[in-house]
Amino acid sequence: MTDYVSRREFLTLLGVSGGTAAAILAGTALGLLPGGAAAATLDLQMAGTEQRRIAILGGGLSGLTVAYELSKRGYDCTILEASHRCGGRIFTVRNGDLIDEIGNRQYCDFDDEPHMYFNAGAARIPSTHRNILAYCKKLNVELEIFVNENKTSYVQDKSMLGGQRIRNIEYTTHMKGFMAELMAKALDQEDLNAPFSESEAETLLGMIRSFGDLSEDDLYRGSLRAGYATGGFLEHGVQKEIIAFRDLLKTPLGRVLISANEGDTGPMLLQPKGGMDKIVEGFLAQVGDKVKYRAMVASVKVGENGVDITYDQDGVRHPLQADYCFNCIPTHLITGINNNFPAEYVSALKYVRRGEAYKAAFQAKRRFWEEEDIYGGISWMNTPSLQIWYPSHGIHQDKGVVLGAYDYGGGMYHTRMTQQQRIEAHLSDGEKLHPGYGQLVEKPITVAWHRMNHMLGCSARWRRSFSRGWSYEEETHYKTLQQPVNGRHYLIGDQMTMHSAWQESAILSAYWAMADFNQRIPVTQA
Amino acid sequence: MTDYVSRREFLTLLGVSGGTAAAILAGTALGLLPGGAAAATLDLQMAGTEQRRIAILGGGLSGLTVAYELSKRGYDCTILEASHRCGGRIFTVRNGDLIDEIGNRQYCDFDDEPHMYFNAGAARIPSTHRNILAYCKKLNVELEIFVNENKTSYVQDKSMLGGQRIRNIEYTTHMKGFMAELMAKALDQEDLNAPFSESEAETLLGMIRSFGDLSEDDLYRGSLRAGYATGGFLEHGVQKEIIAFRDLLKTPLGRVLISANEGDTGPMLLQPKGGMDKIVEGFLAQVGDKVKYRAMVASVKVGENGVDITYDQDGVRHPLQADYCFNCIPTHLITGINNNFPAEYVSALKYVRRGEAYKAAFQAKRRFWEEEDIYGGISWMNTPSLQIWYPSHGIHQDKGVVLGAYDYGGGMYHTRMTQQQRIEAHLSDGEKLHPGYGQLVEKPITVAWHRMNHMLGCSARWRRSFSRGWSYEEETHYKTLQQPVNGRHYLIGDQMTMHSAWQESAILSAYWAMADFNQRIPVTQA
Repeated sequence: MTDYVSRREFLTLLGVSGGTAAAILAGTALGLLPGGAAAATLDLQMAGTEQRRIAILGGGLSGLTVAYELSKRGYDCTILEASHRCGGRIFTVRNGDLIDEIGNRQYCDFDDEPHMYFNAGAARIPSTHRNILAYCKKLNVELEIFVNENKTSYVQDKSMLGGQRIRNIEYTTHMKGFMAELMAKALDQEDLNAPFSESEAETLLGMIRSFGDLSEDDLYRGSLRAGYATGGFLEHGVQKEIIAFRDLLKTPLGRVLISANEGDTGPMLLQPKGGMDKIVEGFLAQVGDKVKYRAMVASVKVGENGVDITYDQDGVRHPLQADYCFNCIPTHLITGINNNFPAEYVSALKYVRRGEAYKAAFQAKRRFWEEEDIYGGISWMNTPSLQIWYPSHGIHQDKGVVLGAYDYGGGMYHTRMTQQQRIEAHLSDGEKLHPGYGQLVEKPITVAWHRMNHMLGCSARWRRSFSRGWSYEEETHYKTLQQPVNGRHYLIGDQMTMHSAWQESAILSAYWAMADFNQRIPVTQA
Repeated sequence: MTDYVSRREFLTLLGVSGGTAAAILAGTALGLLPGGAAAATLDLQMAGTEQRRIAILGGGLSGLTVAYELSKRGYDCTILEASHRCGGRIFTVRNGDLIDEIGNRQYCDFDDEPHMYFNAGAARIPSTHRNILAYCKKLNVELEIFVNENKTSYVQDKSMLGGQRIRNIEYTTHMKGFMAELMAKALDQEDLNAPFSESEAETLLGMIRSFGDLSEDDLYRGSLRAGYATGGFLEHGVQKEIIAFRDLLKTPLGRVLISANEGDTGPMLLQPKGGMDKIVEGFLAQVGDKVKYRAMVASVKVGENGVDITYDQDGVRHPLQADYCFNCIPTHLITGINNNFPAEYVSALKYVRRGEAYKAAFQAKRRFWEEEDIYGGISWMNTPSLQIWYPSHGIHQDKGVVLGAYDYGGGMYHTRMTQQQRIEAHLSDGEKLHPGYGQLVEKPITVAWHRMNHMLGCSARWRRSFSRGWSYEEETHYKTLQQPVNGRHYLIGDQMTMHSAWQESAILSAYWAMADFNQRIPVTQA
């Protein structure tokens, strides 16, 4: 393995080519694929005359979901949001926005145009995530296709071909060709081939040949699928030079490329037009009046008949009394709030760790990637910056915002640097993919989720080891936190699922909690 | 092979999963991939005071390109278009539009809304087709991402699993798993494994395991990548039942699925917002005044100093004298027009055959595919209807237009049927993918390109055999037609490339002809 990607990180890379660091390996990152659950139905009764007061701690997506659904049913909801904005890790950065990293506050200076935004947190909605999609529809959030894998984009590793960038399609075409050759050989060995009838073997061989574009002798000798060197329209297309199998094996990125778009990024991906926070706007159009901003929770005391909360706002401590409380504050921040939770609940809260995802973005002075036939998608570098994302929207506009680094592997690599050092590192990495990069991009921003004010971490990481399933200890803690304290205090958010880092998870956790809550409240009259 | 897909057709299927029946096999259907030619530059001089009259026969994309470029340079262009509309096989069908199939005229009855259209001809622009994309930019044709492969969509074959539909991702995940198992076995055989060092073999094995999501013993035992049976968010995801290797081999569609998105559909694909004919509109905004509609060319006589043309319009024969002529009338229709072309030119014209592509579309009463997590892309059936395409646009609107059949293999299968029989066949085929299909869709249209008035064929097919490269005979004819008659009459259109059926090809043929023309005209003063 080469410098930056260790074997362990490699597993991570592989599992999370979709970008969620929490859902990894053998049973990898996964969407709720069809045949699984349908969109959840929420069969909640209307509020009665009592027990109407709902406190929602945190204005993340799960909190907004609860506020929306319960307000609609007559409950009196209050959202306490510690920061200046709702949405949590749904965070779209535009001109003038504050990036509130502790020790590194930045204001975004992108041009003030609708397509000039950066989704610094949630950026993709798998088509199988039915509940978030259902809210998009209900809240009139317009959607468009998001491009994730793009075979026209680049791959670069200093260990491969002297660091020369190649197109993803060159890598994958050749790798598939050599793989097909290997399969054809195996099929030719009678002992390996035992279970197949002659006709099955023939069918399979046909598929293998198609898969790899093999020559007639079942060897791989390159393929026009990897692109023309010249010609192809007015004259014959000339095949590009083949890349040796041995060279392809030199980059650990190969694993990612050859199994791209599995799990959550296997289905089509979508994004709201204009930025992911159009979803937050959609919710706030309904429940915006319930939110108290810059309201930091100071204490949560769960009683037999309700929950007593205090919070600080504008330098003043306020009380908030509620009948029920839904809490999506990150577990590792809850542990610092005065509480009377049972000991095993507190232990469980302390158990959950956090990811340390890091993203950077630049404004591009012109859409240089489109000049190279790239429309959306990801280029891969075996450097700490790891990825460049090109926007799926704003095609053929003058400028655009590119993601210049995405370190979801959980390193503190970039956050040990100054802002200037981070930027220089991304410029230097990007230069290997796009010569002249330093002149093509400007107005950098960086978002280190584990240093963001009121966050101090990215998504929940329940599991200590990604090479096994959930341990008994992990399951026990998870189940402890899923149950409400005294039937009054619910922990919600993507942190309360086995599939963190997705908006769908946040909604499903809220649904679980509201369904449980609904069974506890007195039955109201029809 | 099963009923509808013969071995021969299979090769076709494979080569043209991208949809062009003309560019097939080993060196398969191919886009101008990066590293190939840059966007062509057109360095043409301004028109002088003489030799300014340009006749353009046919208002297809190549004709419009010539009209646009030469008008801009001061030439006096006239386009003779035989039908009631420009664009040729760029044909977007909307409410009220005439589908002028001979013997089966139809008027489209889709709801009159911007997203309710059907691209009956050109439907996809590969991101590597730089020249058509450059025109989109120049002519302010807004673009959006087009979804081609969608792993959430379905595959269905009566020979496989008793005809039960499965998700594409089930098929491909399992097939890749079994393929990986085969590769791992091969790698385990020392004699097959000879060229690799231990560390290379280990790297490769890692890639193979990733590729197929193999168990630790390098066997394939199913994968959560194929989707959850249940759970995945609040509870553990339960793996869907594996499908046996043997069963996967029962459908010839496997070849297409396992090598999907190669060639022209390998790069990202784009489409104009609102319909492919926004491109035609873009050109016509510039040169619309040059077009004579319903003007059928009756004769073309090429002289030493110009070209004499006659055409019929409104029952009257008109003369048109030009200094140069650019002709994009389909070769097989030119042969019926009075001409004085050299014998070998006429022979070459007669040599070129035509594809017989057929598409059908329905208005869907609701977007039932989105209820099944499908957003855009293609479902595959091993039936004559072959494909259902779901629209990439209009997400979450009430209705949409689906492609209900795409027979690009060149059969006359559907065109031997009445309109009613065609529709019943597509409804019956579609029912296997979408139960209740007959009630979900309405307002059918069918477009049989080989019976469309003034077309009588789809794209040019130069090659008699798709299992070999171009023959000497084919090359000779091609080169004969590429050269202008007397330096005055140019044949253009995608028919005059080795890569027919793409808009890029039409433009490049026009560029070739204009560059040649530019060298022949007298040099004008600076």
